[in-house]
Amino acid sequence: MNPVLIEVLRGCDVESLHAGALAIVDSTGAVHTALGDIERPIFPRSAVKLLQALPLVASGAAQAYQLSDAELALACASHSGEPEHVATAASVLAKLGLTSDALECGTQWPTREPVLRGMLVRGELATPLHNNCSGKHSGFVCVACLMARNAGAEPAEFARGYVAAGHPVMREVSAALSATTGVDVEGAPRGIDGCSIPTFALPLRALALAFARCGTGDGLSDGHARAARRLRQAVAAAPFMVGGSDRFDTVVMQAFGERLFCKIGAEGVYCAALPELGLGVALKIDDGAVRAAEAAFAAVVQALFKTQSELLRGYSHLVLRNWRGREVGALRPAAALVTAFATR
Amino acid sequence: MNPVLIEVLRGCDVESLHAGALAIVDSTGAVHTALGDIERPIFPRSAVKLLQALPLVASGAAQAYQLSDAELALACASHSGEPEHVATAASVLAKLGLTSDALECGTQWPTREPVLRGMLVRGELATPLHNNCSGKHSGFVCVACLMARNAGAEPAEFARGYVAAGHPVMREVSAALSATTGVDVEGAPRGIDGCSIPTFALPLRALALAFARCGTGDGLSDGHARAARRLRQAVAAAPFMVGGSDRFDTVVMQAFGERLFCKIGAEGVYCAALPELGLGVALKIDDGAVRAAEAAFAAVVQALFKTQSELLRGYSHLVLRNWRGREVGALRPAAALVTAFATR
Repeated sequence: MNPVLIEVLRGCDVESLHAGALAIVDSTGAVHTALGDIERPIFPRSAVKLLQALPLVASGAAQAYQLSDAELALACASHSGEPEHVATAASVLAKLGLTSDALECGTQWPTREPVLRGMLVRGELATPLHNNCSGKHSGFVCVACLMARNAGAEPAEFARGYVAAGHPVMREVSAALSATTGVDVEGAPRGIDGCSIPTFALPLRALALAFARCGTGDGLSDGHARAARRLRQAVAAAPFMVGGSDRFDTVVMQAFGERLFCKIGAEGVYCAALPELGLGVALKIDDGAVRAAEAAFAAVVQALFKTQSELLRGYSHLVLRNWRGREVGALRPAAALVTAFATR
Repeated sequence: MNPVLIEVLRGCDVESLHAGALAIVDSTGAVHTALGDIERPIFPRSAVKLLQALPLVASGAAQAYQLSDAELALACASHSGEPEHVATAASVLAKLGLTSDALECGTQWPTREPVLRGMLVRGELATPLHNNCSGKHSGFVCVACLMARNAGAEPAEFARGYVAAGHPVMREVSAALSATTGVDVEGAPRGIDGCSIPTFALPLRALALAFARCGTGDGLSDGHARAARRLRQAVAAAPFMVGGSDRFDTVVMQAFGERLFCKIGAEGVYCAALPELGLGVALKIDDGAVRAAEAAFAAVVQALFKTQSELLRGYSHLVLRNWRGREVGALRPAAALVTAFATR
């Protein structure tokens, strides 16, 4: 059993609990902080989009198609489907001479409620461009198009089926995961992600290592090191693209700039690179709760940067209100999480 | 630590876990099944709306204002804000000569997505009648109006502030909770619920006892026993009112009729009365997840009724699909939950 990381209070009493595990590792693999079982494989889901985007830059595709900061940041994103996200994904595909028909992520309505409401009022329909993964998938299609160009193949034809584990694009993505985490994903438990690509279960320790490496460049091939730096810079320049309005990843990276790259994943995962501290972070809430993953990660950032940031405290100690706006409770970091950093 | 009750699979591997506690008790208080800590107080939230509605019938208010089955069922509901729910709550208030201005539950948009979308397209605004608790609150206002009539007071004036713990209506509601659970709620941990009334933390064992009593009438005052029977019959006659389209509580009670009364509560709570088995059920998922509460309760009902119901299995083994409709995982009852019933 992993320790409780986040408590949910109603009034002064604990109403719900979120257990989980946390690994903070440097680029040599030395463990800075470990809570719970950091060796058990977990599905990182969208928290590893930075790692999955490395081939986009390392292959030369980002340069060949002259992708902007915003377009590269969107390749690392789980965005809210706002107009800027949709336009940016469409812009990437336009550079390839393709449309949203090339995307195999499926159709999803925007998660940003005012955007969704506006579409409904105007009678608009969702498209694959609104899918939170449309930027990552547009990046996959870029890689496919460059491969097709080099092989003298028809781009759209070559790209088709890119979500399958055996497709040349997905092989590159899997290779990047193996290289950065140090775990051969071919032998890892495998599932299908929300956007239809494979997702591999990997230990939190290995995930944290991969992000420490991406923050420092240590232990990576030159190509991956350059790609990680370029992607981090792009995200720092265009953090809105990684999430959107009022999204935790976006507001935190707007505040921290290049000092912090972080990314949420479905089912309670967070991964982050902290270049100036030389550390990588990976955490998983056992029950998959987003509220707890954000709160725990916000607590970790406050502890590691020794900051009293009101912005971060708003997440680690999120106030809960009822339908009349009355304060009825709050989240708070539990003892295990607080004491892990108390003596440093 | 409570045992894991529900596992979430991605592919063949466990991605997330939901721990919790379960109490099944008969009306004498004898424990039929216990998993985890059933003595620790938990906030039952909306799972005890049946108990909170007892004064509506026991006071004579339901009879005085000639409430229908649908109106009584709505008093026990966390409804989806569909037109039938809104009309029924409005009808109760109309019988009192009042409007939605009398409700103190706050405004909430319908949780039923097609209903919400239709309102947005038509430019309509949510009202307190759309709040999932509008039926319960309309019932509270009924009790207040009868009290006012008996006291010769102005009804709307008397009702004002009924959500406060010290208001005569809420005192009756608290007394019903104390009487049925056998725990004096005045000494219990207290919070404010989503709809602004007090919520008291009570042991699962006591909650299960209350529902066993409401299913059988044993151990209740004559007034509460009659009220519980009347409310259960009303809900069995109008199960749509308790939830709505595609809602678990509604579909299960449509299938089981008077053999089963069940009610979900926020933050992963379920309570149920099983009259023909003489049992009450109360469970809480530690992390507050609705998906796990529904799955665990569906598994409990299958075990207790020894049924292979496809309907229930659809919840206990809920299939998870991605944006392209591809099956990517499923819920399943964990070992502790399965073995608890294996030898019976």
